[in-house]
Amino acid sequence: MSVDLLVEKINKRGNPSVAGLDPKIDYVPAYIREKAYANYGKNLKGASEAIWEFNRGLIDALYDIVPAVKPQSAFYEMYGLYGEEVLHRTISYAKEKGLYVILDVKRNDIGTTAEAYSRAYLGKTEIEGELFDVCPVDCITVNPFPGSDGVKPFIDDCVKYDKAIFTLAKMSNPSSGELQDLITEDGTRVYEKIAARINEWNENTIGKSGYGAVGAVVGATYPEQAQTLRKLMPKSYFLVPGYGAQGGGAQGVKPCLNNDGLGAIVNSSRGIMCAYKKGGWKDEQFAEAARQEAIRMREDLVSVL
Amino acid sequence: MSVDLLVEKINKRGNPSVAGLDPKIDYVPAYIREKAYANYGKNLKGASEAIWEFNRGLIDALYDIVPAVKPQSAFYEMYGLYGEEVLHRTISYAKEKGLYVILDVKRNDIGTTAEAYSRAYLGKTEIEGELFDVCPVDCITVNPFPGSDGVKPFIDDCVKYDKAIFTLAKMSNPSSGELQDLITEDGTRVYEKIAARINEWNENTIGKSGYGAVGAVVGATYPEQAQTLRKLMPKSYFLVPGYGAQGGGAQGVKPCLNNDGLGAIVNSSRGIMCAYKKGGWKDEQFAEAARQEAIRMREDLVSVL
Repeated sequence: MSVDLLVEKINKRGNPSVAGLDPKIDYVPAYIREKAYANYGKNLKGASEAIWEFNRGLIDALYDIVPAVKPQSAFYEMYGLYGEEVLHRTISYAKEKGLYVILDVKRNDIGTTAEAYSRAYLGKTEIEGELFDVCPVDCITVNPFPGSDGVKPFIDDCVKYDKAIFTLAKMSNPSSGELQDLITEDGTRVYEKIAARINEWNENTIGKSGYGAVGAVVGATYPEQAQTLRKLMPKSYFLVPGYGAQGGGAQGVKPCLNNDGLGAIVNSSRGIMCAYKKGGWKDEQFAEAARQEAIRMREDLVSVL
Repeated sequence: MSVDLLVEKINKRGNPSVAGLDPKIDYVPAYIREKAYANYGKNLKGASEAIWEFNRGLIDALYDIVPAVKPQSAFYEMYGLYGEEVLHRTISYAKEKGLYVILDVKRNDIGTTAEAYSRAYLGKTEIEGELFDVCPVDCITVNPFPGSDGVKPFIDDCVKYDKAIFTLAKMSNPSSGELQDLITEDGTRVYEKIAARINEWNENTIGKSGYGAVGAVVGATYPEQAQTLRKLMPKSYFLVPGYGAQGGGAQGVKPCLNNDGLGAIVNSSRGIMCAYKKGGWKDEQFAEAARQEAIRMREDLVSVL
């Protein structure tokens, strides 16, 4: 019912990082694309199969270094049903390799609709009394905009099926402050109000790791805010985007960590996926380059623990 | 680049309503489910095919009464790839029948990821210089939590491909106020701040109808708030959930309308889909019952215009 499985894998690898699988097509080495287009056509299917080859190579190179991967749903949805199928294949393969899978979907809706989303990714879908797995992952991202009754259905499935969620609190993009940083009448900011809610939602889900099922997405680009949020949600794991490509380094991550050196998992997508484009690698070495970057990132993060 | 096409269809039908296609499996008449299970198995595929039969029947019965349908993505995602395929099939069929299609996905993310989502539903996906349609609809719902740079990519595609979006502003569920009703330091509420942003985003997208591409989701359950929001976003179309099943009636819709009788499209999902469960209809008459309810709803709405 908690985030224990993630913490276990982080401890095992000595590595609080997650490899984002956001496969923009120009991230995929040309030779993989060409081969996929030759086999399946220069179309949505060909592009999807190229992404699958790329993802498989990345997972093979990373599964003993990183504890988790985070596919970003948008980059699969943009190839339609072929892309969705490759997303399912990628998730299954990552799980086979022992990786914790965080699916970045940022789903949100009111009660019964949130329930339907939750069944798709965390729970199970019931058909005439029988339960079916649909797209089972360990964890998803959730948008808290609809309030408690939009988030509760996800939490219920976390408790029931030992899953976890990361709820948006303070994002890493430049305009995230427009809504999230608004100051409310009592002087606190909107992201602090959300943090207080997350802390409440998390309360009854604490596992043996000391952390609960309801984590928070907290951008590494705003360290002072991260510090405040850490205090407001002491038992929530943080998913930290914005390392590397978006400008935040390991120092930016530090305020997201608790004194136990735990409490945060840091995402890198482009930094790892496109490592082969820097420093004299050949396209064919994309997986080895990704592995080296994942190791470098691990050392960087461990240095601030 | 605007919502003109929707306004045109609303005027043509004399009906400012949209039929939600949120096919919970227990909404589908037993005889349709049994037949689908017999043909495809009592599984995700069987359930998806049952939903398709139901949707097709509803669309056939409604397309000359309502101007638009609104499939809710969650209820297709919960059946995995089979469900997604039926969602695509439903969208194509609705478009063939001349219906305006609003896909309720509430997508949201930061810049480049929002771009990917937008390509999936509003824009086109580029593969080696060629553009592909993925899951083209007329309009989607968007969550504004990430701020301007998360919403702009959708607006860009609205302008480029003559599409529209409805951005969440004030939702219809009981806990929507937790975040959306927070009072900010200048005395205005968060939903009013969002409304002001929507109005800004909408500014350069006004079509010949007088309405722009950036609409707002405004719950019919909170009439006073709807009145405030109407003033803050005079040129935004409102998508109004909460009619019927959620407790809001035609009177609740009134404040969402402008003096021209336009400005709002009202959603009913369960009310129309499950009309056959009330008032002595046989299961086999589900489509006729839906049609009658859609006509009743039209009259109810027209009475407050």
